[in-house]
Amino acid sequence: MTRVSFEVMEATIKQAFLLAGMPEAKAAICARIHAESSRDGVYSHGLNRVERFVDYLNKKWVDADAEPSLEIALGAMEIYNGNLGPGILNAQFAMNRATELAEAGGFGIVSLKNTTHWMRGGTYGWQAAGRGYIAICWTNTESCMPAWGAKSECIGNNPFIMAVPGEGNPIVLDMAMSQYSYGKLQVTRLKEQKLPFPGGFDHAGNLTDTPGFIEETRRILPMGYWKGSGFAVLLDLIASLLSGGLTTAGIDKAGKGSCGSCCQVFIAIDPFKWNTREFVEQAIQETIEQLKSAVPTHEGGEIYYPGEQSQKNRKENSELGIPVDDSVWARVKELARI
Amino acid sequence: MTRVSFEVMEATIKQAFLLAGMPEAKAAICARIHAESSRDGVYSHGLNRVERFVDYLNKKWVDADAEPSLEIALGAMEIYNGNLGPGILNAQFAMNRATELAEAGGFGIVSLKNTTHWMRGGTYGWQAAGRGYIAICWTNTESCMPAWGAKSECIGNNPFIMAVPGEGNPIVLDMAMSQYSYGKLQVTRLKEQKLPFPGGFDHAGNLTDTPGFIEETRRILPMGYWKGSGFAVLLDLIASLLSGGLTTAGIDKAGKGSCGSCCQVFIAIDPFKWNTREFVEQAIQETIEQLKSAVPTHEGGEIYYPGEQSQKNRKENSELGIPVDDSVWARVKELARI
Repeated sequence: MTRVSFEVMEATIKQAFLLAGMPEAKAAICARIHAESSRDGVYSHGLNRVERFVDYLNKKWVDADAEPSLEIALGAMEIYNGNLGPGILNAQFAMNRATELAEAGGFGIVSLKNTTHWMRGGTYGWQAAGRGYIAICWTNTESCMPAWGAKSECIGNNPFIMAVPGEGNPIVLDMAMSQYSYGKLQVTRLKEQKLPFPGGFDHAGNLTDTPGFIEETRRILPMGYWKGSGFAVLLDLIASLLSGGLTTAGIDKAGKGSCGSCCQVFIAIDPFKWNTREFVEQAIQETIEQLKSAVPTHEGGEIYYPGEQSQKNRKENSELGIPVDDSVWARVKELARI
Repeated sequence: MTRVSFEVMEATIKQAFLLAGMPEAKAAICARIHAESSRDGVYSHGLNRVERFVDYLNKKWVDADAEPSLEIALGAMEIYNGNLGPGILNAQFAMNRATELAEAGGFGIVSLKNTTHWMRGGTYGWQAAGRGYIAICWTNTESCMPAWGAKSECIGNNPFIMAVPGEGNPIVLDMAMSQYSYGKLQVTRLKEQKLPFPGGFDHAGNLTDTPGFIEETRRILPMGYWKGSGFAVLLDLIASLLSGGLTTAGIDKAGKGSCGSCCQVFIAIDPFKWNTREFVEQAIQETIEQLKSAVPTHEGGEIYYPGEQSQKNRKENSELGIPVDDSVWARVKELARI
């Protein structure tokens, strides 16, 4: 396995984005976020997404120069048009604006319509939690998962993020609605392994833990069967209604690739407005302790809080370098003409 | 199977609550909500919960006379102390207050600390959606589920509700974090059936679809394995931090039964403040249509939107009477001295 330093990965991705026509400052931020996602172990939405993002810039499905524009302001709530600008920049702007509103009045809700793929959703949870805010955010997407009871794709695999600040211990949940991502299916197939639990349906309509069968049928399983399916529907509708933008059905019709013209919601809350710092820290510490002192399923097993494994990956990959797939890394270097 | 009319069930439950010392008006509302839950098919949190609620009133774990009191007001956000009053009344008050704030400014966030079991969480989603508001609400609970990686109970099975209004078609998701409730395990065991999918672990630590084994180990499965487990942790922490109340760890120590001194969050949003009625209806209709026109898993199969089956149950049980477990119904009549 090849490992690449954060700095080299970031600089290489930035070069690829500059060559695709992004302005300097925007390329720098997008490159950093992609490299951070890989560094934190979310390989599917870091380096591995660079080629597709460049492709979307070339196709003008993402407008490198567009900026979000304010559509409606209602006190602590604001609605923006993302104008098909880079999803990372729009989302980072929106979460930042939500924290500004929260700083002023305790909480803020910012929604985006007509934006593009935000890559790793957890980015915006870490962003807010790192500055001391609770965050809740989500996006809708194009149809890429069958609803419960269906075998054709008709709902989005909408990621949902919740984050809580804590001194040194932000607790960050970043989950999509499918049990496994297509990235996980691919990686597991290439290793000739089975999934830990069934992750979708085979051609006979039976649940299977063989990733290749699921890639063929495209019948990935919603987490919790009917629960993740229903959750995806509500996240989609509420994102559309909060921003005045497209539902999954509308995104399908727009035909601008993965998440092209999607909607997103960013909620930030300042828990220190009505709680002491001690109260917040105690709530977090007693919750971590409650998890850590539970009886593990097997001797020596550890129970992790959400986000803990990202922090472990971050530490390890910062020290040792970020693991890369050689063919993906070669392709990104080509895009950067290195 | 015995069926009981809505009116008879409601009147009988009300009588039981009056005899347990509830004031008339409060007994009437709580009885109606319990009967509505059974009517909508949520039997576990309707009639079946009456005996336990009366027990909690007798133990003074629920204070029939207590009213919520305002602790902090920050514009569209308000925090109340539930003062251990009846959870249904506190929650109904809080969601109503959230919709009032939304009516004024587009959205409202109301949190409750120190409240008690709200019974069926969906009640408050239907309440808001029925009046034209989007709703998001959740509660924390005592430890009643092992976290992912643990075999002892250490996290709450925190219900999470999302609702969207629609003319005649509110879309309401009401889900707890476990794949199945203990009520579902019991009902399935009594019928000598298996669960549709594995719902927890047996004594050997293997996933099982035999409900009795799971009732014995108390190792119910979080929906989506690690996903529902992490979601439960975040819902707990955010409910505590938004209200200044107890986390699951704190509720465990309080020792006032199921959900005694828990925290709840109620968010209401008025989508008609910035969208036309046509836009809202179209978003909902195209989403329903997208689901209904997907290819079903088997010929003649139907794909339901969240809340649709509750509406079907409501219609059927309103016409035919509400199915009751004979022993449960007999016990409630005893409590009502009928």
